[in-house]
Amino acid sequence: MIGSFHPPQRILMGPGPSDVSPRVLAAMGRPTIGHLDPAFVGMMDEMKTLLQYAFQTKNELVMPVSAPGSAGMETCFVNLVEPGDKVIVCQNGVFGGRMKENVERCGGIAVMVMDDWGNAVDANKVEDTLKANPDAKILAFVHAETSTGAQSDAKILCALAQKYNVLTIVDAVTSLGGTPIKVDEWGIDAIYSGSQKCLSCTPGLSPISFSARAMDVVKSRKTKIQSWFLDLTLVTAYWGNAAKRTYHHTAPINALYGLHEALVMLQEEGLENAWARHQHHHLELKKGLEALGLRFVVKEQDRLPQLNSVYIPDGVDDAAARKSLLEDYGLEIGAGLGAMAGKIWRIGLMGHAANERNVNICLTALEDVMS
Amino acid sequence: MIGSFHPPQRILMGPGPSDVSPRVLAAMGRPTIGHLDPAFVGMMDEMKTLLQYAFQTKNELVMPVSAPGSAGMETCFVNLVEPGDKVIVCQNGVFGGRMKENVERCGGIAVMVMDDWGNAVDANKVEDTLKANPDAKILAFVHAETSTGAQSDAKILCALAQKYNVLTIVDAVTSLGGTPIKVDEWGIDAIYSGSQKCLSCTPGLSPISFSARAMDVVKSRKTKIQSWFLDLTLVTAYWGNAAKRTYHHTAPINALYGLHEALVMLQEEGLENAWARHQHHHLELKKGLEALGLRFVVKEQDRLPQLNSVYIPDGVDDAAARKSLLEDYGLEIGAGLGAMAGKIWRIGLMGHAANERNVNICLTALEDVMS
Repeated sequence: MIGSFHPPQRILMGPGPSDVSPRVLAAMGRPTIGHLDPAFVGMMDEMKTLLQYAFQTKNELVMPVSAPGSAGMETCFVNLVEPGDKVIVCQNGVFGGRMKENVERCGGIAVMVMDDWGNAVDANKVEDTLKANPDAKILAFVHAETSTGAQSDAKILCALAQKYNVLTIVDAVTSLGGTPIKVDEWGIDAIYSGSQKCLSCTPGLSPISFSARAMDVVKSRKTKIQSWFLDLTLVTAYWGNAAKRTYHHTAPINALYGLHEALVMLQEEGLENAWARHQHHHLELKKGLEALGLRFVVKEQDRLPQLNSVYIPDGVDDAAARKSLLEDYGLEIGAGLGAMAGKIWRIGLMGHAANERNVNICLTALEDVMS
Repeated sequence: MIGSFHPPQRILMGPGPSDVSPRVLAAMGRPTIGHLDPAFVGMMDEMKTLLQYAFQTKNELVMPVSAPGSAGMETCFVNLVEPGDKVIVCQNGVFGGRMKENVERCGGIAVMVMDDWGNAVDANKVEDTLKANPDAKILAFVHAETSTGAQSDAKILCALAQKYNVLTIVDAVTSLGGTPIKVDEWGIDAIYSGSQKCLSCTPGLSPISFSARAMDVVKSRKTKIQSWFLDLTLVTAYWGNAAKRTYHHTAPINALYGLHEALVMLQEEGLENAWARHQHHHLELKKGLEALGLRFVVKEQDRLPQLNSVYIPDGVDDAAARKSLLEDYGLEIGAGLGAMAGKIWRIGLMGHAANERNVNICLTALEDVMS
């Protein structure tokens, strides 16, 4: 017989999930109600308001996709890309490569702008590519590359997209709530994030937003959207119109309780304060990591405060060190992904986890396991 | 400022979500750990064993899709259907129609076998269609039609599929845990369910299983699977091989805690006992509903014990009656879907909700609001 599962208590300083506040955990455990219950429908309206604040947008379409960030990415691509469409995809880590996969699985043509892992996306190369591809429909890029900790200049990239009259798809999985994202001011057309990074909720939901211009493109498609589950022209029957919500799929009720509470906490703190808190603790962590002799992967001006990638020092065994952190300190940090596997550590300071206690524990524990 | 959300306490006797045990709710609120944490990976192994028991299968591929039942359906179709493939789809309610949508969005050809809403799928018509379409690749049907409460004979339909050498895709969203499903004995190739029906977990996950034969078909496709998120050749890097789980997407950790606990409870009760409990309370409810003069939509031999559809009596206002049930008794029952809207009620007795207290409250409350 298999018994109940009682997870150990960890400190989550990897690339996500991040530490979840007891307030969010308590919300997850509240009694389940129906997805068309008037009380739940009222909660959905609040969720939209809270997400509009987090994304800094007045977009009508703002909602959490009922699945993790990867499904949020797929929602953007399957709704906007039709067979034969040309999409300029910037790749400077794992997630740009996933975007390319998405474009191709929609029958689109991905024109790649490649930058080295750890670098930000090069805006000059993007402009050259936009110039060379006047028939491109979309520019897609990752704002905060979770595989390396590099931040690209979303404002400049979106301005280029507008100059060359293409739509934008922006991956903000690791940035939302941690560093500035201004959907309306920057003119982002389609954006997706994840619940388990700087929003500090449990994993499993992907907040998205589409501009009116992007929704016009979705509504005037020549071909059917290949995913029924992610088809926004159908999903919006439930999430779009507050006056009359009709069943599309059964919403993940308790997960949404959790996200609602996480967004209430973000609103209480204030976005600007949350950004400043991430920056503050990043600088503290940076000072300590450098004192331990660790080198950052990303150039100072392109670093994400919420995801600190450092090279593993020579002579330190990656797996053994992370095992010791986990077993002796209950501390999870992230391994390298793809080409970075075995070469770097990714230390997250995301959402609720961005606090002084975590910085101190992490530095003490790292010093111990590296010695 | 928006405050925390505190849902009312309901009794969930609709078509799902069903009442969730306090044990499952408590599990949902346990501390989040990483999706590659050794403790979590151990929980995943248990989850697979528990799902094999629930599905009555030894299939290697058994896992919860990180999204609701609709995404489980889509997982089956996008992995098995290639452009031009012919799929025989049985429709006797809403969800057969959703299967047709899935086939067509995969570029397949749906050959429909239509039965009236409220009837079971007619096996004779299915055999005629199999005979007339020797080039068909798949037979897809809904075991338990959530829109009507009709149960089809999955054993006979699967035997026909084997006789004519086609694969089967079976919707067991509402049946798993409530009425017998025997994946290996019946030779089901691909099956999906939902967490929020007779498993009595919160909504948001879709347990699936694929036979070795079905996985061979997936692995020998000529075309790429159109969904990256649902591509089983990729997802199984995380869920497939217990010895080495590698990142595909971030698993919905706390939702999986909940499903694990719900499956532990099913194992404790025993599948046969759970089936008998649903049947027992169905008979009690049936007696009471008939005493109130309510007529069932589905013929006696095709009725699902866990979903009781009855015609709304003349002179009773559907919306007003359900509003009164919710406000005065905290009781949710289901409205009719699609063609049945305004004509029927769907009264669920699913999982944790299939108990004597609920039967009594429901009958008392219905008598009150109909008088």
